[in-house]
Amino acid sequence: MPDSPGGGTGAPATLRYRADAVVPCDGSGRVLRPGVVEVSGSTVTYVGPDDSRTTETGGHPVREVRVTGALLPGLVNVHCHSPMTLFRGSGENLPLDRWLKEVLWPQEAHLTQEDVYWGMTLAASELLCFGVTTTCEAYFHEDALTDAVVDAGSRAVVTPGVLQLPGTGSGDDWWEARTAEIVAFHGRRHGQEGRIEVGFAPHAAYTVPVPVLADIARAARGLDALFHIHLAETEAECTLFAAEHGQSAPALLAAAGVLDGRVLAAHSVWLSDEDMAIYERHDVAVAHCPQSNAKLASGVAPLVEFLARGIRVGLGTDGPASNNDLDLWEEIRLAAMVARIREKDAGALPAGAALDLATRGGGLALGRPDLGVLAAGSQADMMAVDLDSPAFVPLLEDGQLIEHLVWSGSSRLVTDVWVAGTRVVENGRCLTVDVERASAEVNTRARRLVQAAG
Amino acid sequence: MPDSPGGGTGAPATLRYRADAVVPCDGSGRVLRPGVVEVSGSTVTYVGPDDSRTTETGGHPVREVRVTGALLPGLVNVHCHSPMTLFRGSGENLPLDRWLKEVLWPQEAHLTQEDVYWGMTLAASELLCFGVTTTCEAYFHEDALTDAVVDAGSRAVVTPGVLQLPGTGSGDDWWEARTAEIVAFHGRRHGQEGRIEVGFAPHAAYTVPVPVLADIARAARGLDALFHIHLAETEAECTLFAAEHGQSAPALLAAAGVLDGRVLAAHSVWLSDEDMAIYERHDVAVAHCPQSNAKLASGVAPLVEFLARGIRVGLGTDGPASNNDLDLWEEIRLAAMVARIREKDAGALPAGAALDLATRGGGLALGRPDLGVLAAGSQADMMAVDLDSPAFVPLLEDGQLIEHLVWSGSSRLVTDVWVAGTRVVENGRCLTVDVERASAEVNTRARRLVQAAG
Repeated sequence: MPDSPGGGTGAPATLRYRADAVVPCDGSGRVLRPGVVEVSGSTVTYVGPDDSRTTETGGHPVREVRVTGALLPGLVNVHCHSPMTLFRGSGENLPLDRWLKEVLWPQEAHLTQEDVYWGMTLAASELLCFGVTTTCEAYFHEDALTDAVVDAGSRAVVTPGVLQLPGTGSGDDWWEARTAEIVAFHGRRHGQEGRIEVGFAPHAAYTVPVPVLADIARAARGLDALFHIHLAETEAECTLFAAEHGQSAPALLAAAGVLDGRVLAAHSVWLSDEDMAIYERHDVAVAHCPQSNAKLASGVAPLVEFLARGIRVGLGTDGPASNNDLDLWEEIRLAAMVARIREKDAGALPAGAALDLATRGGGLALGRPDLGVLAAGSQADMMAVDLDSPAFVPLLEDGQLIEHLVWSGSSRLVTDVWVAGTRVVENGRCLTVDVERASAEVNTRARRLVQAAG
Repeated sequence: MPDSPGGGTGAPATLRYRADAVVPCDGSGRVLRPGVVEVSGSTVTYVGPDDSRTTETGGHPVREVRVTGALLPGLVNVHCHSPMTLFRGSGENLPLDRWLKEVLWPQEAHLTQEDVYWGMTLAASELLCFGVTTTCEAYFHEDALTDAVVDAGSRAVVTPGVLQLPGTGSGDDWWEARTAEIVAFHGRRHGQEGRIEVGFAPHAAYTVPVPVLADIARAARGLDALFHIHLAETEAECTLFAAEHGQSAPALLAAAGVLDGRVLAAHSVWLSDEDMAIYERHDVAVAHCPQSNAKLASGVAPLVEFLARGIRVGLGTDGPASNNDLDLWEEIRLAAMVARIREKDAGALPAGAALDLATRGGGLALGRPDLGVLAAGSQADMMAVDLDSPAFVPLLEDGQLIEHLVWSGSSRLVTDVWVAGTRVVENGRCLTVDVERASAEVNTRARRLVQAAG
C-alpha cells in the first residue's frame, strides 16, 4: 500500500499523481494529456494539466506518484445486489417473475449473514478489479453486507431490502418492524469509514403495499436517505399493476407522497409520457440496467428521452444472477448500443454521454456530486487504465481517447484502483480480498442454498 | 514455442493436452472435466475425458502438456475487415451510408499495401489474444493482408473486396479485371501454410452491378470458393433497392444465379419471410454482426428465425472502425441479448446456442466443419481459458461452465492460444506480433490517411 497518506503530521500529506492522461469526467469532456491529480487523505484537492504543478502545495509535503496510463474516476454502479454472486448462473433462461418465484426467493429465504458476507466479498473483488469503486446495494443481511464492503476497502450506498419472502416475513407488523430495523441500522452504520451511506430499498410497488412504501419514504426523508425501488421493470408487471390499481405505479406512488424525497427508480423500462413527466416533476433518478433488461427480455428503457427531460440517470449492473458479472464497462457500451437500436439513430448517446452515465451521472443519480468525478473536493476514488493496448490505436487527437474508452476499452485494461485515497487494486490484483478463499466460500454456500431450497 | 511438433521423425509427435476442462463445442453440449485433446501436427486427433488416455498412441511418441483452465476451440469471426484498425474511432456517430461516403471511402482510396499489412498485423495481435483464431476477411490489398495473417500465425478466409472507390476504380472493364485479379490471387495463395483460404467479396448489391455479381459468383463456383457479400444491412438500403429494382436484393440475386454457390451474406438485418425462404432454399449462410448493427443503428437481425429455419449462422465483429474492437466474446453475449429483446423471450438463444454461433456455427457458416470445434480431424486451433476467476463461481455442475463462459466469461480470461497446433499466445501475450511496432505503424499511417483524404 505504497500510497497511503503518511502519518505523524497534523494534515495528511498530499499525493501528486502524474499520469499520461487524466479524464476527469467532470462534464467538460476534457482530456488532460498528461495530467495531474492531487489527493489529500481521502479527497481530491486538485486536477489539472501536468505542467501546472511544479511546487509544494499549501506548505504541506508533496509526494509524487507516477501513473502509467490514464486516470479516471472510479465507476459508480447505481443498482446492484452484489451478494447474489451466490446465485450466479442460477435459473438461466427464465423471465423475471418465474425466476424470482421459482428459483431465487426460495433460496434467499435460507440466506445467513455469513453467506451474504462472502457473496459481497467475492463481488467486491470483481467490482474493484473492474474499476467500480461505488455500488448502490439493495439486499438483505445489511450488517454483513456492510462488513464486507468495509473489509474490501470499497464504497457503497447500502439500501437494505424490504420484501416479505416466504418463510422470513409476513403480517402487517413485520413491515413496521423492518422499517424500524433499517432506521436503527442507519444510526449504527451511516457514514462508517467515510465509505458507507445508508438508505432504504423497498422491493417494488407490486410486492410492498403502497401505504408501507409511504411510511418507508417518510422514514427515508427524515434521515435525508436514499429511497431505492424497482419500478416499471417488465411490461407484464405494469399491465397487472394498472389493471389492479387503475393507474401506473409512478402515478400512484406520486399521489401517495412516496416520490417526494431522494428517490432512485431502478429499471424504469415501461413508462408512459405521463410517468416520465412525474419523474421529471419529482426529480426521480433512474438506475438504467441495460444488460439485465436485455438478458431477462424486459426491454429497453427510454434513455435518450430521460436525458432530454433532464432526468438524472446512472448505470446499474443489477445482481450477478441476472447479468451475470458486475462489469460496468459493458453497461456503458450496451447503453449506447440499445439506445441506438431503440432510437434508430447512429448518433444517439455519443461516447462522452455514455461514459458520463457510469461516472458523474451515476454520482448525481445517487445525489452524490462527490462521486464519479475527479475534481477538487471529490472523493479520491480512481482507476488507472492501461493505454498501451491496440484498443487505443490510432489516437489522432485527445478527444478520441473517450471514444476508445467507450468503444474499444474494457475492464481488462484497468490496472490500479484507489478508494478514498487508498490503493485497493495493483497491477490487476485485488489487494484487499483473498479471492481464492472467497471463491471457495461462495461455492460451498451456493451448494447448500440450492439443497435447502429443495 | 514449447509445443511445436518435434521434428526429425517421419510422422509428427502427438501432443496430449491435459486440461482441467475441455469444451469441445461439437454440438453435443458436453463438458469434459478434466479432459484431453491430442494433436498431431496441425490436426486434432482425439478429444475425450482425461481418464481414457494413459497409453502411447499409434506407436508415435506422445508428449504431455498440462493446461490450467479450460480448452475450447479458437473462435471463428465470419465477417471482418481487420485492417480497418487504421480507421478505429474514425467518423463516430454517423449512420452507415454517410460514414462510408464521407469518412471511410475517401481515406481507403489512399491505402497502400504496407498500410494494410500493418493494420492487419495489429488486428491479428488483438484477435489472437481474444482467442479468435479464424477470421473471414473482406478487404483490399489482399496480398499484404495475407502476408500479415501468415506472419502473425493466424488463420483467415481471405475474400478480396470488389468495389469501385473514387479514384481507384471505374468503368465496366475494371470489374472484369478485378475479378481476374482475384482468380489469379486464388491460384497464388489459396491453401498457403494450410492457414489461408481464398474467396471473393463483392461489396454489396447496391454498389456492384448485378451482372458483375453473377460473373463473380460464377468465378467463385468454378473454384469452389466462398462468395462473401454485404446483404440487407440497413432499412434505407433495402427500401431504395426495392424501389429501383422492383424486388429485394436477395430475390434479384437468386434470380440472377448469384446465390448458387457457397454464399455468406453479412448482416442480413432486413429480410422478409420470402427473403429468408430464399436463404433457406439456396443454403445461404449468415454472418450475424450484432454489435456493428447496434452501434450503427442498423437494427437487429432475425437470428432466432434463421436458426429455426436451419439457416447457417456465424458471428462477425465487422471492422474495427464500426465495432470498435475485434472481441468475439462480446458478440456472443450481445447476440443473446438482442435476440431476447427482439423476441421478448428470456429463453431465446440459451448460452449453449450462443457459444455455438462463435465456434462450430461459424465454421459451418464458412463451409468449414473443421473449424470452431475440437474433434478428431479438426484443425488444432484452440484457446485456454482461466477458470480461476470469480466469473466461474459458483460452479455447481459441469453444464454451468457454458453458462458462465457466455454470461460472465470474457476475452480477458484467455491465457493461451494455438493455431494449427502452434502456440501463438502465451499467458496473454502474443508471441508472433511486435505489438509496440505495429501500434506505432498504425498510428503514423492513420494520420497520413486522414491528411490525404483532406
